[in-house]
Amino acid sequence: MSNNEKDFVKEVTPQAEDFSQWYLDIVLKTEMMDYAPIKGCMAIRPYGYAIWENIQHLLDRRIKETGHKNAYFPLFIPESLLQKEAEHVEGFAPEVALVTQGGNEKLSEKLVVRPTSEAIICEMYARWVQSWRDLPLLINQWCNVVRWEKNTRPFLRTSEFLWQEGHTVHSTEEEAQEETLKMLGVYQEFLENELAIPVIPGQKTEKEKFAGALKTYTIEALMADGKALQAGTSHNLGQHFAKVFEIKFQDKDDELKYAWTTSWGVSTRLIGALIMVHGDDRGLKLPPRVAPVQVVIVPIITKKKRDEVLLRSKEIAEELRGIGLRIELDDREEYSPGWKFNQWEMKGVPLRLEIGPRDLESGGVTAVRRDTGEKSFLPSESIPSQVPLLLQEIQDTLFRQALEFRKRKTFRPVDYNEFKRILEEDRGFLLAHWCGNSRCEEEIKAETKATIRCIPFDRDPEDKGPCLYCQKEGQLVYFARAY
Amino acid sequence: MSNNEKDFVKEVTPQAEDFSQWYLDIVLKTEMMDYAPIKGCMAIRPYGYAIWENIQHLLDRRIKETGHKNAYFPLFIPESLLQKEAEHVEGFAPEVALVTQGGNEKLSEKLVVRPTSEAIICEMYARWVQSWRDLPLLINQWCNVVRWEKNTRPFLRTSEFLWQEGHTVHSTEEEAQEETLKMLGVYQEFLENELAIPVIPGQKTEKEKFAGALKTYTIEALMADGKALQAGTSHNLGQHFAKVFEIKFQDKDDELKYAWTTSWGVSTRLIGALIMVHGDDRGLKLPPRVAPVQVVIVPIITKKKRDEVLLRSKEIAEELRGIGLRIELDDREEYSPGWKFNQWEMKGVPLRLEIGPRDLESGGVTAVRRDTGEKSFLPSESIPSQVPLLLQEIQDTLFRQALEFRKRKTFRPVDYNEFKRILEEDRGFLLAHWCGNSRCEEEIKAETKATIRCIPFDRDPEDKGPCLYCQKEGQLVYFARAY
Repeated sequence: MSNNEKDFVKEVTPQAEDFSQWYLDIVLKTEMMDYAPIKGCMAIRPYGYAIWENIQHLLDRRIKETGHKNAYFPLFIPESLLQKEAEHVEGFAPEVALVTQGGNEKLSEKLVVRPTSEAIICEMYARWVQSWRDLPLLINQWCNVVRWEKNTRPFLRTSEFLWQEGHTVHSTEEEAQEETLKMLGVYQEFLENELAIPVIPGQKTEKEKFAGALKTYTIEALMADGKALQAGTSHNLGQHFAKVFEIKFQDKDDELKYAWTTSWGVSTRLIGALIMVHGDDRGLKLPPRVAPVQVVIVPIITKKKRDEVLLRSKEIAEELRGIGLRIELDDREEYSPGWKFNQWEMKGVPLRLEIGPRDLESGGVTAVRRDTGEKSFLPSESIPSQVPLLLQEIQDTLFRQALEFRKRKTFRPVDYNEFKRILEEDRGFLLAHWCGNSRCEEEIKAETKATIRCIPFDRDPEDKGPCLYCQKEGQLVYFARAY
Repeated sequence: MSNNEKDFVKEVTPQAEDFSQWYLDIVLKTEMMDYAPIKGCMAIRPYGYAIWENIQHLLDRRIKETGHKNAYFPLFIPESLLQKEAEHVEGFAPEVALVTQGGNEKLSEKLVVRPTSEAIICEMYARWVQSWRDLPLLINQWCNVVRWEKNTRPFLRTSEFLWQEGHTVHSTEEEAQEETLKMLGVYQEFLENELAIPVIPGQKTEKEKFAGALKTYTIEALMADGKALQAGTSHNLGQHFAKVFEIKFQDKDDELKYAWTTSWGVSTRLIGALIMVHGDDRGLKLPPRVAPVQVVIVPIITKKKRDEVLLRSKEIAEELRGIGLRIELDDREEYSPGWKFNQWEMKGVPLRLEIGPRDLESGGVTAVRRDTGEKSFLPSESIPSQVPLLLQEIQDTLFRQALEFRKRKTFRPVDYNEFKRILEEDRGFLLAHWCGNSRCEEEIKAETKATIRCIPFDRDPEDKGPCLYCQKEGQLVYFARAY
């Protein structure tokens, strides 16, 4: 390793030294984002945005395959509309941005910049839903939302963020519940297969549910520092919004009935999850399915063989682009190969192909995996078949590693003391009995900063035990400190 | 035609009676949009939004093929940033929405909801551009913007709208000018080939140029009522923004120089253009390349042959989906075929396939074109080859019809009197000599509501004549009343 290269790696704070600083070093130095001159806001730079575009592309397909269509609703919500649903306004009013002036005039009614769109969408749905024939109404939108956050962190919590929010209307309670769980399932499958992030699906407690929801479901992921991240939520809104916004329909039996609604969303926070689940001290490690660059080709240029090496590099780049892969050919001559290796490793490119005079002679390329560091030689004729296989292996390995990490970091403390000790030493998920009382939940949070992440779907109803806090009989839930 | 069907068509005001009302009838009744309870804002419903998604998909590809990458910048711009460029703030300040409160507190500085993003983007670019190696910087963003408009009309002019805005930085004036014209060319090619809308490319006058630009270029389209629509613009911003935002770079000669910037955009206004260029009294006529539904299949269900007809309809739908077409199979049994024909005609679906017992017997389907009303019989085996050909023919016909209409509606008035007469009787484009003086331009606008749409690229410099207004020697420009 040359001095240059050491400096390069040194730019990133090691995870073990300061995970939080490591995260900030990564997002800035890989040029995923930059801070903007507005409190808590960021500019998402092309390298970060390309990940979001891949997420959008892969998730949008699933949203459409499950029968939803995209639409677009206004950015602004009249304050009076937000106030209609009591719990909803209580949850969101403290963190909204308000427009009070428009076109040089003071507005007669303040406009809320949407923190989420239930209010404006339900207002429109009340007009569009008349009969059972109009149901189910299955709509999604991709947009920006604003929540005036006190403590912000790039991608994880920003005053403005990008997301998708699905909003559906159904004629029966059962159908709304089915939709709520179906979309949570879509999120789980999407995170596990595309982002290589294993998640625990479950229900939120009353205390942690969405403001205005009947029931909130969540998928929870574990970051490399042992903290949990809520990666996506799906809400059964019951008839709460239908009743205050008057979403009614003439049913087949000719009766006028209130409808049942749901909403569900994931956001640019997923980019933060990708970074914190897979990254290491050398930088990002992006799963091939969402990596902006799946393969970087680095020609090892020597004076003698310069043209041959460059020509062969271009041929391989074209060949791989031809089979639909996202390829970067880094033929800049002002940087050394070693410098480029480090840079592309930091940017988390899953696979590097090196092509030098010796590779030319041997009739192939050297392939280096970002996940394991493993090197292999690929004979020319095998490149178009081997590269996709290697990428699939990397995708699978990242998922397996994350799953193994989560298993290793999931604990079953025997009592509250052990619970607190684990939180201090290891963090991770703590599967423990809880009596179901919000009071215990709140005390535990106040004393340990750990919250109930979810009541898991797969808990064994027979597995009962004393509540971590009050000793009354309880059932298993996942606790963790969380982002 | 049954009574029912007559009523259906009657719902739309004829163009000749009231073009403006025809337009509003169409956008509401085809469920492209609905009015929202916020002044000048609308909800874009799935049928309208699907057109926008197709536009995004087809244009985004072109933006990327020309070397640009997507990114995302904040929605909010501190008021002081917007004020940096004098002409820019003068142009936009009167129509901005202002956020003055966030998270229950009064903000120390008001935030402008972006009306366009030059200010915030240039602020970020000043940090990212250091050396000639960082140039050109070629970034685009898809987002929402807000301009507090007094007179609004769905898609054409709304307080919030969706668009893309490209923002680029270059090391030389020549390169910035080349980029500006290149992107105008991309817009022209995109509108003509995908939206089937012929446009006239040219330069805006000083009076009509973008607030803060050195030069603004435009593509101008002619609507069916003879009014012009500015369909896209591309601005050479000179060093105006680079100087006030301090976008400087170390050039190859080691000197520190101000950069040159450009910006260019098209918006959801293009959906309005599609409606007004191609639509007729029966409704929309969508070009196949951007139609949400390219082919609707309507089974003609009779008691005897119900199952056979439905089965065959499904087979054909699957076959056509298999070759990548967007297909709707309308097998609802609560509506008559006639009602469906009308509905899908109103929605502008380019091609209808009817499958009834007689078609089954003859071993094929009846195809009906939306553009010409022409019917033809397609034998089963020819469907997968003939349908794409028919769609291409419809695409070509729509463009040709629009081009012929524009030619017919382009006039060369001999004097100001004829100019005024044509504007009253025919509207259309008026190609007339203009001396270059803003004063004449303003007087003409005040007296006739006609503005100079553009100084066309292809004008013959030898074709000189007396200015329409002052009789001094002038050159040819396009005048029109415009949206």
